[in-house]
This record gives sequence, C-alpha cells and structure tokens, in this order.
Amino acid sequence: MLDALPDRVSVYEVSPRDGLQNEAAPIATAAKVRLIEALVRAGLTRIEVTSFVSPRWIPQLADADELLPLLSAPPGVTFSALCPNARGLERARASGLEEIAVFMSASETHNQKNTNKSTEASLRTFREVVSSALEGGMRVRAYVSTVWGCPYEGAVDPARALSITEQLLEMGCYQVSLGDTIGVGTPLQTRTLGKLFLSEFPQEKLALHLHDTRGTALANALVGLDLGFRHFDASVAGLGGCPYAPGAAGNLATEDLVYMLSGMGVETGLDLERLVEAGQVAEAVVGRRLPGKVHQAGVSSLRSA
Amino acid sequence: MLDALPDRVSVYEVSPRDGLQNEAAPIATAAKVRLIEALVRAGLTRIEVTSFVSPRWIPQLADADELLPLLSAPPGVTFSALCPNARGLERARASGLEEIAVFMSASETHNQKNTNKSTEASLRTFREVVSSALEGGMRVRAYVSTVWGCPYEGAVDPARALSITEQLLEMGCYQVSLGDTIGVGTPLQTRTLGKLFLSEFPQEKLALHLHDTRGTALANALVGLDLGFRHFDASVAGLGGCPYAPGAAGNLATEDLVYMLSGMGVETGLDLERLVEAGQVAEAVVGRRLPGKVHQAGVSSLRSA
Repeated sequence: MLDALPDRVSVYEVSPRDGLQNEAAPIATAAKVRLIEALVRAGLTRIEVTSFVSPRWIPQLADADELLPLLSAPPGVTFSALCPNARGLERARASGLEEIAVFMSASETHNQKNTNKSTEASLRTFREVVSSALEGGMRVRAYVSTVWGCPYEGAVDPARALSITEQLLEMGCYQVSLGDTIGVGTPLQTRTLGKLFLSEFPQEKLALHLHDTRGTALANALVGLDLGFRHFDASVAGLGGCPYAPGAAGNLATEDLVYMLSGMGVETGLDLERLVEAGQVAEAVVGRRLPGKVHQAGVSSLRSA
Repeated sequence: MLDALPDRVSVYEVSPRDGLQNEAAPIATAAKVRLIEALVRAGLTRIEVTSFVSPRWIPQLADADELLPLLSAPPGVTFSALCPNARGLERARASGLEEIAVFMSASETHNQKNTNKSTEASLRTFREVVSSALEGGMRVRAYVSTVWGCPYEGAVDPARALSITEQLLEMGCYQVSLGDTIGVGTPLQTRTLGKLFLSEFPQEKLALHLHDTRGTALANALVGLDLGFRHFDASVAGLGGCPYAPGAAGNLATEDLVYMLSGMGVETGLDLERLVEAGQVAEAVVGRRLPGKVHQAGVSSLRSA
C-alpha cells in the first residue's frame, strides 16, 4: 500500500455548485463571487461555479445568469457549470463558459427522482447536448452518481455505472466523475469499484467524487490514489451534499485532501494556507461551522507541528 | 492494499476519559454514568472511564472516586482509569479497578508540559507504579503520546517512541497505545511508523490512538489495519482531544471506525445501532454537536443504502 505515490494529482473544486446547491437560506450572488475568488486565490484551476438546472429544482443556484458575468477566470483557470439539457447549454453558451458538466445516476430510481428522467432518457438528452457543446468548442465533463449505493435502491450493479461511463466517454465527455453520492462507500468497496473502472478506462478519463456522510471520504480517496486515480473532486470546508439523497451531507473537504496529499509529497498546485482562508469564507457565506477539519485546525497549527 | 483483512479487530473506548477531559463546562457524574452505560450496551468491553490525575490538572475528571462506585462492569467488560503515579494507583485499587493505564509522551517538551516530568522521570515513576499494580493483580496499559508529532517540538524522532515503548512493555504493560495526539499524521507517515513498530513488537502489544484534527484519523486507521494493527482506540461521536495540545481536537469516532470495518467484513463485536445511540448520549452529555459522522447519518440511512 502507498508504494507508488504519484508526483501530482488534480483537484476539481465543486463547492460553489455541489456545495451550495442544498443550502436552505438564500445566498447572495456577491457572496458566491467572494467564495469563488477565494478558491481562485488558493490555486484551484477547475471550479464548478453554478448550475443551469431549473430554478424550480435548485432555487439556490437560480442566479447562474447573474453570477457568471461577475466572474473573470484568470489565465489557466476554467469555470464550469452543470447543464441538464439543451436549454442549460444555451445559457452556458450565452454566459461565455468554455466547459460544462452533465450528470446522471447509475441507479434508475435516483436518476428518476433527481432528474425526472429514466437513465435511457438522460443518455439520449446528453447525446445531443454533448455533441452540440463540442461543436461549439466547449469541453464537457460528466458525473455518474450513486455508483457506491443508492438511497432508494441500496446496492447498485457496477455494470450499470460502467456502461453509462462508457457511453458518456463515447459521446466525447473528457472525464467522468464517479460519485459516492450518499457517502456510503467503504475502502474495500472503493478498491473493488476502482479496480473495475481502471481496468476498463484510462485513469485520466476518470475522477472520484466522494462524500463524507459516514466519515470514509478521505480513506476512500487514499485507496483511489493507491489504485491509480489522479483526479479528485472536493469541496472546500466540506461544504455540501445532495439535496435529493436522504442522509447525504458533506463533500470531501478540499483542504483535508490537500493536507493529506501534500504531507505525502503529492503536489496539487494548491496553497493550503489560502485554502484554509477559502474554508473560512465558505463558513461566512453559509453562516455556520462546516465539517472540514484543516480549516478549523488552521495553518499555524500545521507549522508548529 | 487491503489484500489480507483480518476477521476481527478490537476497539478500546476512550470517550469517558480522553473524550471528556477537556470539556470546559462541568459534567455531572450521573451523566458520565449514562454515557458509560450506553457504551456497554453497544458492546464495548474495554472502556477507559476516568483518570486519577490530580483534579488541578484535569478538573473535569475530579469525580473519579465518586464515579467508580456507581459503575458495575458486566461479565466480560473491563473498566480502566488513567494513573499518573503511586497515589493514582492507590485510588484505583480502592475503587476496585482491575486495569489501569499509564501515559507519557515521546517528546520531551510535551511530556514536561503534560505531566510536569521529564520522560526519564516518567519512566522511573512507572517502573514502580506498574510493578506495584501487577503485584496487586492488575493489568496495565500504556499510552505513548505525540508519536506522529509534537505541538511544541514538531517532528519527533521515532527512536524515542520505540525506546519508550520497549521500556513500558518490559515493565509489564500488556499493550502500548501509540498516539497521534495532535492529529498531524498522514497515511504515509503512519505506514512508515507502523512498519517500524511492527518490526520491533508483536501486533497484540500495540494499539493505535488516532486523532482527527486534520481529518486523517480513519485513513490512518485503514493504513494501520492494512499493516497488521489489530487494536484501535476510539471515542464515540469523536468526543475529545488533548487539553494540553494546541489545536488538538477530536478522537477517531468509534462509530465511523466500526462502520468502515463492518462494511469490509471485519468484526468488532460492536452493535452499530447502539453505538449511534451512544453517540447521541455523548452529544446530550456535552450539550453540542460532535464531529463523528455515522451517529449523525443514523442507522436507518445505512439500511436504506
């Protein structure tokens, strides 16, 4: 274990979208800008900033069209947004985004409840959306949710996630992020799933999107790292969860992931001190303590220890 | 990694002592009894219930002499208490305890600040205390703190912890629990330290005592498990920290450890549902949310997923 750690891994930040989407109280667009600017200062170069899902589904992100003109991505930084359909793609295009993300679930029931579509219908929709996005020069990332388990169905056949991943990559998505949406995965399950996916697809086509609902996110990330995954989704201060998955709360905290990685000599290009600051901004934005650990322990404690 | 998981590991519960010792507000003795009874109901058979350290040092545990007569260990359950010196041992004996724990730090400065003694003086004291305890038919466990790092000195030479561990085992301590007191360890460091200790001592003589200050406790436990450690300290709901270590907060949460282990087929003899209940008792006792995850997610969410 940990015999061949990589020099570098890549972190995809999801806090402004996956992190904020299930906040109950409205959050001002200006506060979202502050969070995103803090993330950029920390060195994050790939940030999912909002969603073009219907405001009826995710009221918290209804200000996407207002938010995007307020953001300017410095050179080397890519902002992306979730796009459920052709209408979302239109809005993404109008906002000048160069990257979008499409999303669906491995489990039929979760996909139905989360997107109001069958998985077949989601794939049909994405065939058009992805093709149209690519023609317009955009890059497209994809999420497959509930790969480790579904809040409605329980265990999910890995063959479903494999087949969906294959189809999303064939459509031209540059990467598929595999989600433990309800944070139910154990390291052993992560090993089994991870080996399976890495035997079918090159690592650069895959990412891990882990939730910490039962405390296992970082341990699962470690197993993924050991298996050969090099792309990890994370959310500063552990902001977030999935609004449609009962019991789901807490993404893998970016600063905790980066603390672990940098302490093992794995470079992420991120500045831990500024990530801690971004975590504090995230807490100010939502007005409460967030579960990530390193932003609470602080950087001075890292130096003294 | 995870190629040879054991059938079973043993969990040593520290919440009533390590968990409560740094609580600022006084906690009623009756509330401590409720917590300990909840832990017993969850199946924990080794519980550190209090400390005979001077009330001046740890006022929260000043009621040790009052608490112990209120507890009755069912068959197969062992209660223990921290004993700093001969006076502590006398009190432990008077209370009818069959097991005590001695404690010191691998780093000189932390030992001085935590116990007001040099490590040499601690070892001298324990030679007498342990010998006297063993003559009286007691079992003695030992802690070595700051093995992964010291809040005052930074890095700690592993040779110091190795030598102290060797001496504590030679005195007759049945097990030495190695502490990442300030939760600074990364999985790679845990691998290095773990390999070193397991090359010198049999696994049953060692335990891991991990703190989650920077979110790495469960990942470190996983690495320890993979290396061959079979004994883990934990604290329900993640109650606790070290009152003398700046920035130290949060033991590895018992229910999170058990969720991970049982999900990988590793038996602990513990009832996860009752551990969740014990976590809720712990929250009621301290009057605030605690960081452990599974007691928040709840057991029904485990079943549905």
